[in-house]
Amino acid sequence: MSQKNLMIAQSGGPTTAINASLAGIVEAGKNSGQFDHIYGALNGVEGLLSRRIINLGEQLADKHALDLLACTPAMALGSCRYRMPVPGSTEAKEIYAQIEQIFEEYHVSCFFYIGGNDSMDTAHKLSLYFSERGKDIRVIGVPKTIDNDLPVTDHTPGFGSAAKFIATSMQEIIRDSEVYNVQSVTIVEIMGRNAGWLTAASCLPRYLGEHAPHLIYLPEVPFSFEKFLEDVTREHEKHKAVIVAVSEGVRTPDGKYAAESNQSGKTDAFGHKYLAGIGKYLEELVTEHIGCKVRSIELNVPQRCSAHLASKTDLDEARLIGQKAVQAALAGETGKMMVFKRLSNQPYQVSISSCDIGMVAFQEKTFPEKWICQNGTFINEEGFEYLLPLIQGEISQEKQNGLPVHFLFQKEKLV
Amino acid sequence: MSQKNLMIAQSGGPTTAINASLAGIVEAGKNSGQFDHIYGALNGVEGLLSRRIINLGEQLADKHALDLLACTPAMALGSCRYRMPVPGSTEAKEIYAQIEQIFEEYHVSCFFYIGGNDSMDTAHKLSLYFSERGKDIRVIGVPKTIDNDLPVTDHTPGFGSAAKFIATSMQEIIRDSEVYNVQSVTIVEIMGRNAGWLTAASCLPRYLGEHAPHLIYLPEVPFSFEKFLEDVTREHEKHKAVIVAVSEGVRTPDGKYAAESNQSGKTDAFGHKYLAGIGKYLEELVTEHIGCKVRSIELNVPQRCSAHLASKTDLDEARLIGQKAVQAALAGETGKMMVFKRLSNQPYQVSISSCDIGMVAFQEKTFPEKWICQNGTFINEEGFEYLLPLIQGEISQEKQNGLPVHFLFQKEKLV
Repeated sequence: MSQKNLMIAQSGGPTTAINASLAGIVEAGKNSGQFDHIYGALNGVEGLLSRRIINLGEQLADKHALDLLACTPAMALGSCRYRMPVPGSTEAKEIYAQIEQIFEEYHVSCFFYIGGNDSMDTAHKLSLYFSERGKDIRVIGVPKTIDNDLPVTDHTPGFGSAAKFIATSMQEIIRDSEVYNVQSVTIVEIMGRNAGWLTAASCLPRYLGEHAPHLIYLPEVPFSFEKFLEDVTREHEKHKAVIVAVSEGVRTPDGKYAAESNQSGKTDAFGHKYLAGIGKYLEELVTEHIGCKVRSIELNVPQRCSAHLASKTDLDEARLIGQKAVQAALAGETGKMMVFKRLSNQPYQVSISSCDIGMVAFQEKTFPEKWICQNGTFINEEGFEYLLPLIQGEISQEKQNGLPVHFLFQKEKLV
Repeated sequence: MSQKNLMIAQSGGPTTAINASLAGIVEAGKNSGQFDHIYGALNGVEGLLSRRIINLGEQLADKHALDLLACTPAMALGSCRYRMPVPGSTEAKEIYAQIEQIFEEYHVSCFFYIGGNDSMDTAHKLSLYFSERGKDIRVIGVPKTIDNDLPVTDHTPGFGSAAKFIATSMQEIIRDSEVYNVQSVTIVEIMGRNAGWLTAASCLPRYLGEHAPHLIYLPEVPFSFEKFLEDVTREHEKHKAVIVAVSEGVRTPDGKYAAESNQSGKTDAFGHKYLAGIGKYLEELVTEHIGCKVRSIELNVPQRCSAHLASKTDLDEARLIGQKAVQAALAGETGKMMVFKRLSNQPYQVSISSCDIGMVAFQEKTFPEKWICQNGTFINEEGFEYLLPLIQGEISQEKQNGLPVHFLFQKEKLV
């Protein structure tokens, strides 16, 4: 009898939760007893096409390894930025045929792709191809993105941990900002090119008893430099240390990124072009027009890889959605993405199901207008109630010599 | 019989450990039974001079409050950037006389100033003044600075927690940097204008099994842009993802900050001057001269306020050095700064004593040349052994709704 094997790949940008989903798929695959081998392709579809494949079942030999993996940030299998060719093109036919051949070679009956928008598109196209060819190779997409911008699902694995890091850092920055008895502005720049979910999460400390942040700026609300200066001046009447959160993706009404819209493109002595982020830009604007102490803080990459501060809710759900993906495939589903449906906020309850993956690819879910208040500079209670459950709980990460222990695959051990 | 009271103030830049020292002084002051009241001046000497004084004994009523305070980042009493006038000047005489009067008014017999270099200078001058006037008001300095640049003491409270945050973040950034199978450079910019202790701490992950960071640049080693590009190119022969840590304070051989030395001072459309940090600058240099994927990450303010990732060793020591400061004052010492002396690395043992505070003010301890290796781009085993004990142990911070609980004084309740 021929083998039945399971293949997993990861793609898109790193998150803190993407390896928890990987762990969930591996353990459910093992526990099902339905697979001879569980494989992982390195660097997404790129590694699949070049047969850079490792044996996950072997390398994740016990629960300890799976638990370590689940708390390791960034995709342990590596990522790629590969976009599948348009279906019907000659190039597409070749690529799909190659993947089909590789799957047959490795006896793959179920393929799981953990990723964001682009990865769901890849999974969608592959599942269509296999269906058309009458092949029983099931393809399931498992969502992840810190941006929380995938449609259909209530939220995405990875978002809760990034939100917890941002809320905690904001709270600590509030402490740091209050120590001097002088007028000041602190600007915190937060990830999110098109959706303001992460910037909205910076409001959580205020909901929980802090008096700050005072102002937030989301990509969903057209940005005005004049209004920003007016807002800060108004807040200074109430607070010496005004604290602002701004999304990297805020845009002026003409649709340009605000950080770019006023830059001259001039170069310095070495010929370097000046293209700072919005935080730095607003810092300089405050210096010039308000003249008080000001600084900007870009939270940067730690937003998506600070596993030491992961949300337990997020990692638990990410692992569970991986397990459920295996169950869905074994029940015969294909061409689906796993989704969360929120049943209630208090107590927090979600169910996990699946949706047609075609509903997801290239759709973007932005922060709802009905949750934005204070003339575009804050979020309301409904928004808070949505966000709060997602940052709950702390994980216990194994430490050695004062640093977290990460799980690393032996990537040179190809099968 | 007249009262005997204890007064505390905090000054300089925020750290994660400065409130642990405050907690240590308050609890030792209470436990000694030698003081009627324990007071805190808000915003350092500035608040003292304007009689903005609160009752710490009352506001820190129990161990729970003290424990919360010890895990709260940034100075809970507030800070100032006040420099005492030169002794002998008319201005100085007036200020010292004012402080003497306030101390008499509040029956202060012992004054503790928790701070860095400038604060030790203030404490030094005050202690000289009181001695000259024959007043038995004891003045003790308690060190703190994330920069670890105070002389005499083996290390400073606050450094270990900043080092742990930097080492952990570096390890997570290494994970994030490895996901794509392409040539890349990641540049992490770390605090420290004059001393490279914090940048050196970024090496800890490599000592503990990671292969990165590959290159570090300290303020102690003259910086060359050409050598930097050569170093990165050489490392790319061994590693696809080259990871670099650079101190914000690196200087070119002419003594200028490297980030400034090549900038034109040109302004953009709004008249803003371009003055980026060294990380951003090196990022652009790599783009231009090497041309691979590159990004820079400024760890910024979270380095000094990420209490959620504090080193237990650091916070325990910070609290203990506060307690010992009270014992020193009660034993009759004045004009002293408390210091750590390292007895051994393995097992890690320190003793706490005091030194003449005049030995400390305006002195700077940089990272030792003998611990720098690989042509200025890494630190050796002796350096590692010095650093490693300081990041050990995790604290258990009280959480509420997924965020840490911070202790805040009621600053409007003046005595």
